Amino acid sequence: MSASPASDGRRFDFRSDNVAGVAPEVLTALAEATKGSVTSYGEDPITKRVEERLKVLFDHELTLFTVATGSAANALALAHLVPGWGSTLCHCEAHIATDECGAPEFFSGGAKLAPLDGAHGKITAATVAAYLARDTRGVHHSQPKAISISQSTEAGTCYTPDEVAAIGAAGRKHGVKFHMDGARFANALASLRCTPAEITWQAGVDAMSFGVTKNGAMAAEAVIFFDADLAKDFGYRRKRGGHLFSKGRFAAAQFDAQLTDRLWLRLAAHANAMASRVAQGLAGIPGVALLHPVEANELFVLMPERVIDRLEKAGFLFYRWPAEEGPCIRLVTAFDTEPAAADGLVAATRAVAG
Amino acid sequence: MSASPASDGRRFDFRSDNVAGVAPEVLTALAEATKGSVTSYGEDPITKRVEERLKVLFDHELTLFTVATGSAANALALAHLVPGWGSTLCHCEAHIATDECGAPEFFSGGAKLAPLDGAHGKITAATVAAYLARDTRGVHHSQPKAISISQSTEAGTCYTPDEVAAIGAAGRKHGVKFHMDGARFANALASLRCTPAEITWQAGVDAMSFGVTKNGAMAAEAVIFFDADLAKDFGYRRKRGGHLFSKGRFAAAQFDAQLTDRLWLRLAAHANAMASRVAQGLAGIPGVALLHPVEANELFVLMPERVIDRLEKAGFLFYRWPAEEGPCIRLVTAFDTEPAAADGLVAATRAVAG
Amino acid sequence: MSASPASDGRRFDFRSDNVAGVAPEVLTALAEATKGSVTSYGEDPITKRVEERLKVLFDHELTLFTVATGSAANALALAHLVPGWGSTLCHCEAHIATDECGAPEFFSGGAKLAPLDGAHGKITAATVAAYLARDTRGVHHSQPKAISISQSTEAGTCYTPDEVAAIGAAGRKHGVKFHMDGARFANALASLRCTPAEITWQAGVDAMSFGVTKNGAMAAEAVIFFDADLAKDFGYRRKRGGHLFSKGRFAAAQFDAQLTDRLWLRLAAHANAMASRVAQGLAGIPGVALLHPVEANELFVLMPERVIDRLEKAGFLFYRWPAEEGPCIRLVTAFDTEPAAADGLVAATRAVAG
Amino acid sequence: MSASPASDGRRFDFRSDNVAGVAPEVLTALAEATKGSVTSYGEDPITKRVEERLKVLFDHELTLFTVATGSAANALALAHLVPGWGSTLCHCEAHIATDECGAPEFFSGGAKLAPLDGAHGKITAATVAAYLARDTRGVHHSQPKAISISQSTEAGTCYTPDEVAAIGAAGRKHGVKFHMDGARFANALASLRCTPAEITWQAGVDAMSFGVTKNGAMAAEAVIFFDADLAKDFGYRRKRGGHLFSKGRFAAAQFDAQLTDRLWLRLAAHANAMASRVAQGLAGIPGVALLHPVEANELFVLMPERVIDRLEKAGFLFYRWPAEEGPCIRLVTAFDTEPAAADGLVAATRAVAG
Repeated sequence: MSASPASDGRRFDFRSDNVAGVAPEVLTALAEATKGSVTSYGEDPITKRVEERLKVLFDHELTLFTVATGSAANALALAHLVPGWGSTLCHCEAHIATDECGAPEFFSGGAKLAPLDGAHGKITAATVAAYLARDTRGVHHSQPKAISISQSTEAGTCYTPDEVAAIGAAGRKHGVKFHMDGARFANALASLRCTPAEITWQAGVDAMSFGVTKNGAMAAEAVIFFDADLAKDFGYRRKRGGHLFSKGRFAAAQFDAQLTDRLWLRLAAHANAMASRVAQGLAGIPGVALLHPVEANELFVLMPERVIDRLEKAGFLFYRWPAEEGPCIRLVTAFDTEPAAADGLVAATRAVAG
Repeated sequence: MSASPASDGRRFDFRSDNVAGVAPEVLTALAEATKGSVTSYGEDPITKRVEERLKVLFDHELTLFTVATGSAANALALAHLVPGWGSTLCHCEAHIATDECGAPEFFSGGAKLAPLDGAHGKITAATVAAYLARDTRGVHHSQPKAISISQSTEAGTCYTPDEVAAIGAAGRKHGVKFHMDGARFANALASLRCTPAEITWQAGVDAMSFGVTKNGAMAAEAVIFFDADLAKDFGYRRKRGGHLFSKGRFAAAQFDAQLTDRLWLRLAAHANAMASRVAQGLAGIPGVALLHPVEANELFVLMPERVIDRLEKAGFLFYRWPAEEGPCIRLVTAFDTEPAAADGLVAATRAVAG
Repeated sequence: MSASPASDGRRFDFRSDNVAGVAPEVLTALAEATKGSVTSYGEDPITKRVEERLKVLFDHELTLFTVATGSAANALALAHLVPGWGSTLCHCEAHIATDECGAPEFFSGGAKLAPLDGAHGKITAATVAAYLARDTRGVHHSQPKAISISQSTEAGTCYTPDEVAAIGAAGRKHGVKFHMDGARFANALASLRCTPAEITWQAGVDAMSFGVTKNGAMAAEAVIFFDADLAKDFGYRRKRGGHLFSKGRFAAAQFDAQLTDRLWLRLAAHANAMASRVAQGLAGIPGVALLHPVEANELFVLMPERVIDRLEKAGFLFYRWPAEEGPCIRLVTAFDTEPAAADGLVAATRAVAG
Repeated sequence: MSASPASDGRRFDFRSDNVAGVAPEVLTALAEATKGSVTSYGEDPITKRVEERLKVLFDHELTLFTVATGSAANALALAHLVPGWGSTLCHCEAHIATDECGAPEFFSGGAKLAPLDGAHGKITAATVAAYLARDTRGVHHSQPKAISISQSTEAGTCYTPDEVAAIGAAGRKHGVKFHMDGARFANALASLRCTPAEITWQAGVDAMSFGVTKNGAMAAEAVIFFDADLAKDFGYRRKRGGHLFSKGRFAAAQFDAQLTDRLWLRLAAHANAMASRVAQGLAGIPGVALLHPVEANELFVLMPERVIDRLEKAGFLFYRWPAEEGPCIRLVTAFDTEPAAADGLVAATRAVAG
């Protein structure tokens, strides 16, 4: 292995896409946004402009609410769709189920999550339909009120438009709302090469968490409702959750920068490409295998314990991941992952495992 | 009146300190902070450094938790001090009581606020003591568990160290915790010319909301606990409130910039000076009077309706404020308020009212 | 004073109507209800019968939900009418505001109460209208969503049908729902000599807490909705509040007994008569005065401290009550208060004060 | 089949033990309890006496809180042991997980349940230990704070004292509290033939839900804490949940009757005996098999669909139960199940299936 991790940790850090900083365009937009005095609490021109741009992007009416974090976006959105006696169907490894310390339960006043199994981080329309077909025996039981899927998923895979539409249809048959956790929406879109509309409202999605923080922004997450009726009163919910920024222009400016000249898709495409590059490089190395298809910017790689140890000793940063199949690591690429880092990781793996 | 409001709204906008943008030093700090890859979720070096600087500043051990907004800081802090069956004593016009859409009640699972009267936005130790001396007749009644004061207050006044200490002592006698809403803490400090320690932990404050957003930051608020035991488990509460930033370095960087070279006090002192300048300028104008002493960066000015109308027509921006004494407006100055704007407002008022 | 309190505390106990036991008819109904096996969780014939009887009584369609306590009835009903960002207007001394340890706030996820002043425990349409006319400035403020009045009130007074209707109309103008706390509904009805319809749905009441526990039952409280749409999903809310009795027939049987042969009104009329008897007896005793008109089964009596002391020493049981006008006691009569007890109290007071 | 269900549904109703009425002794106790005037809200002599009797029964200090329902007891107890960011380990078919419409989540402000698998309705110490040994990765994850087991279980089985103690020890090692849902505690005790102490505090149980409603009472459930520190402030929690009865003597009187002359154990032993009688009768009938061991008063019986149909047509009442093994019914016996009913069911089954 010729490349060795430099003191600058960035290039060899595969822990997450949120260990990265922000894209220069985002910083520029913030500097521009500070000019002048504007109405606070999201009533500023930049927020309005972003909402308009999103309408064009999604080719649909929508209502935008910026919030501080992806957990907030998910929890606030679900709390708006699901009453306390309701439940949200989701994959058993969904971020809302395993990584938000009960935020959805907190914001909804104790609504339940109904975790479903599914290969490669995805639930299926069939599983959803089977769950909803069960007799839920009246008031003793939490009532299914929403489905939430992650796009891209926690396993680094993507739902196709057809898959999304089938899940949406299975839910709608039972009056169940449909939420998409789009913390890595750009990565999915860049991978699927479809339109935003095709994998959201056209596939039955009622509301989504739309985040660009992981994609080179600083802290820019939002809830989008495709139905104005559903959005009603959400402003109160956001405010009392402490998620209404006083200087709302700055959250909006980050979205604005991302949506300009397709920056968000370019950044996501780069991150995805770096993940593919690693995946291709690892292919054929003895004892190394992918746990899930690599369709966005995450890789889950099965490899011998001694290889993992050596990579860690060499200074590569990543998380070990629980897997029944054996020792496994998660690698996440970001908008600023350098090809040399991807190649370095591959070379180091090959050197040890080969 | 020679000056007239320009198309750049900033100079004549007295609606709030949150209609302003950010100080250049804050932008520079953000640009610097983006470099390199760091651990996410607040485990980064900048967050650590800010916590250390705050320990020096307050001359005390403390635990820092950055959050997205001042409402979040207040509500999360109070929820940590007050169980669901508890109540928080506060001024009847406190931000937590009137401007957070029930955030404290939401985060605490329904704890009550006990609003107290008091001149010029301040509660007194005597009022607190009288309230706490009442028989609360057991389980039928919410139990007083915390006091919260704003520093500076919603009336633009400041509690002296002695006043704070007396309130803290009145509460401590009944086992009641003490919280300070420091959304304008810098303005208070710049006005009082005491140390941070004197008006916080030395005066019995257990926890505070410490915000610099209004003082030239973008979105930088925090909860500070002066007692590590009280801080226990607060990280879980913040996370499930959706207030743990993934790229925590950027919230921290804003504090870092503010704490460097006393920027925060310089900015606050300027805002305060602009408020004083307006107050002095208005003194003696017939029919114009101050509703509260001007001790920070807010003025509440009684003036005839026709004067208010003329100021609005002239392009000055501010909010009308309810007051029993008659027509009233609120003027808020900020870190970037220009002397010309202050003078322009005075001149315009004098021209109409004189 | 010829009568002296016997060892049997019942006759001289004026602390509350809930220190009394139950009417014999209620016990008989419970014994009868135990026969046979019936569907549990409120799907039994007795519950159905009570609901039908109430429809006749109120001359209106309605939906009945029995619950365990009056606090539960109030809190569950209000939580169903008011979202978390809402508020409920009520008298500042309402049971929901002062005696339920925050139950309404808990069940609603932190909705606020907006306490209003008013003479003799009653709010007025004018006060309500004035409150609702205020500008509530958008998302920063809890939104008025319900009004709750107690019938009879915590001051032992009753709202006339006209007063109720005026309050209801004032609220409806702003889309605000109307709730009645009828923990002493029978006492009000017996006093007002109007129909149940006249002081409920005909006066704009949407939902009520209907209790007979204080009126000779054991634990029989209910929420009644006069609008089936409002009742939707309330069963889930009740269940997750732990207020769905498994053997629902027994709560229903208590109502059944009360509604048979107008028992509830006879019991309430007796309690009211005993309160009037005391009031008339006390009239003209020097230094003794009523704080509020006596219109139901509660008296608030101003009397010199030494008289209060002597009554206590003589074995009479009652609570001292805070009043700005001077030393005050509250006396509550019940379905089983004996005339001799009422007379004994009057005689003892006269003996000391006269 | 010689016996046929009479018009009196009681004798052939195996739907649940809550379709039964109450034992005569309970009615007598209620009639006795009504005498005299007593302090309300659980400060009455009967409640005090029951608490004392329970201390003797459990051979330990304890604190008693009566509540309206078993769901309330479970949810209130768990909310007191588990903060919002906590989770409760339980069997995946536990009543708290599947039959309380999210009451535990509601009362705890959104704490999670962590459902575990286990044969015959029981979790094991090994499963608990394995779960707790997992790395829960800090603030992103709900923290295990309590274990809850049902005694007897939803599968009609009982935990032995050793099993309980092992689970308690596994939890205590990680600082996790231990709760027992004793809605059918008497049935378990009558089956296990151990002391109440042996399967509760001696085995590490910190708090329990203790119910006698299913065992011939009307509505008598309670939370018991074996540690006074844990009980602290629970009174406030109960009150604001609407579960503090005003006429507390009547809930207590039901417990009093049950604890007199070991009535509760006699009633439970009868119910258990009837279940055994059915189990023994069904043994050897072709195509009929028990899904779980019959250790209390519930049977889960696998039988051909046509046999189930015939039993239903013959007028027997019971619920079908989901089971992977095939068609299944649940039969619950009660304190008043008559041997003739048990024999009738067996005879009818044999007649059809034989």
